[in-house]
Amino acid sequence: MRTTYAIGVDVGGTRIAAGLVERKGRMLKEVRTLTPAEAGPFAIVDAIIELIEDVASGVHPSEIAGIGIGLPAQIDFLKQTVEFCTNLPLAGVDMRSLVMSRVRHTAVIDNDGNCAGIGESRYGAAKRVRDFVMITLGTGVGGALFFNGEPYRGSRGLAAEIGHMVVQLDGPPCPCGGNGHIESYVGRRAIAARGREAAAAGFEGRAIRQRAGGDAELVTAEHVIEAALAGDDVAREILLDAGTVLGEALVGIVNLLNPRLIVVGGGIGESCDFLVERAAEVIDEHALAGRRDVSVVQAELGNDAGVLGAAALAFDEHDSREGLHR
Amino acid sequence: MRTTYAIGVDVGGTRIAAGLVERKGRMLKEVRTLTPAEAGPFAIVDAIIELIEDVASGVHPSEIAGIGIGLPAQIDFLKQTVEFCTNLPLAGVDMRSLVMSRVRHTAVIDNDGNCAGIGESRYGAAKRVRDFVMITLGTGVGGALFFNGEPYRGSRGLAAEIGHMVVQLDGPPCPCGGNGHIESYVGRRAIAARGREAAAAGFEGRAIRQRAGGDAELVTAEHVIEAALAGDDVAREILLDAGTVLGEALVGIVNLLNPRLIVVGGGIGESCDFLVERAAEVIDEHALAGRRDVSVVQAELGNDAGVLGAAALAFDEHDSREGLHR
Repeated sequence: MRTTYAIGVDVGGTRIAAGLVERKGRMLKEVRTLTPAEAGPFAIVDAIIELIEDVASGVHPSEIAGIGIGLPAQIDFLKQTVEFCTNLPLAGVDMRSLVMSRVRHTAVIDNDGNCAGIGESRYGAAKRVRDFVMITLGTGVGGALFFNGEPYRGSRGLAAEIGHMVVQLDGPPCPCGGNGHIESYVGRRAIAARGREAAAAGFEGRAIRQRAGGDAELVTAEHVIEAALAGDDVAREILLDAGTVLGEALVGIVNLLNPRLIVVGGGIGESCDFLVERAAEVIDEHALAGRRDVSVVQAELGNDAGVLGAAALAFDEHDSREGLHR
Repeated sequence: MRTTYAIGVDVGGTRIAAGLVERKGRMLKEVRTLTPAEAGPFAIVDAIIELIEDVASGVHPSEIAGIGIGLPAQIDFLKQTVEFCTNLPLAGVDMRSLVMSRVRHTAVIDNDGNCAGIGESRYGAAKRVRDFVMITLGTGVGGALFFNGEPYRGSRGLAAEIGHMVVQLDGPPCPCGGNGHIESYVGRRAIAARGREAAAAGFEGRAIRQRAGGDAELVTAEHVIEAALAGDDVAREILLDAGTVLGEALVGIVNLLNPRLIVVGGGIGESCDFLVERAAEVIDEHALAGRRDVSVVQAELGNDAGVLGAAALAFDEHDSREGLHR
């Protein structure tokens, strides 16, 4: 049967969002709640169930294809198990079965970066592109890989940890244990650290400092971005430097994967077009032959990418169960 | 018809090799010649035709599935065109048609790194592995990617330029125009440069210097490898340092692609087990969760990988034309 809706759930370290989504990607209803991260895995499942029931209310169950859930975790997609999860107590939790035992629908879980990539692929910046890389710049730097029109998850579903590729062997330590990884230069923590430095340095850092209420120690990445968007050169320079490092890292990814498109998302990527443009210039200057093939664009779906992608995954799972082609 | 043999050709900057290969990968006959690099593209085609005729002599044409040709070039595999070629005058040369106009068989061209990867996949270190990365350490550092059991060539066939990924933003310049790429640390030129430095530095570099006839300026990567294999600590340290950098770079590739296996080939990779072991240790120490999945091994087919892989490609092309499954 050709169903009308799917439910997408995007579980983040801070917030959980769920939406009722039509096949063509229109979001009919979206609800959000804070993630009860401290209250244990079952509280998180309870919160997810509550959101699902909320968005599904008033819709006949037979019209719902299923539920897709994006988790900030490393997922063995074939086995549908949560292998590792740094920010939430979900490792080893059988999320899929727990959800399916309490609602009438089939559920499927995937990594949140993959869901965002599927969202952009189906409804956003990467429509009709078979080979692309999505990179999300937030607190963590992650992403998704699409090869031959399908998400690529690696041998066990752990691929696309793009933030954890070295760009400076003797660079600053990364929380993962490495040194000089991409995340150490373009993640929220790195931008904030450079912002604090600039804010503490005196007159030139005043625009950034003002946004943190005059206290350099309180500067966040968002303060730096706001100052840059308001025209402050010091803040803009910090973000352009991050764009240069991002570009050099993406040169390597272009040389390795010869993608048709790179989609830059996440809070930092989506708010700073000039950072993305700088990265594109570096690729144009330094990539091998593949640069002629590749476009670099900002993501289009913002915060909705994860919910939309999770819903698309639910549609796909439903259709392949039913033997339908999309 | 189920044919018995394929002809594989491996065109290098220095030498061209061709072999008559059975379906199971046994090489029945192999011939080599020097690459007439200075004499222009037609001389190269002539040399290839001569080798093909040599290995095919005495075999009935109906028993030959076709010819696979690996070129040290960036190939648009779908269009079967040579897009770029740094070391030989082959860019824009319609190698496939030129060969097919002079022999009775169908020909297919591919990048030499892909051919080596296909060889190791079918007959060597990566048998029965669906997701692996091959990296070849020679003058250039290249490789091949296998995803879901198939070579992945990127959106236009230019993928797997593994040597041109940044590992040190402010590192030494790379011939490609970038800085601090993998090739700048683990390629033959980098090893030779460190060898010359050590050889010039006095007593400690004597073992390396001796192998270059006492002249530090003449030290090559091979001299460093020979000295290391003979037990010289200075030479060994140079190669272990290269192994450490290789390991850190491969950490990024493991985090990005979650491969099941990494095959290290090329002259340097195949002669220095201790370098490969050092890289494996670094991966074990620094990669994210994916390290539990990945093995790092030396290539098994040596110089034959390219010829065997090119032949396997010819078998595949033949079988898909004839509607046979392999």
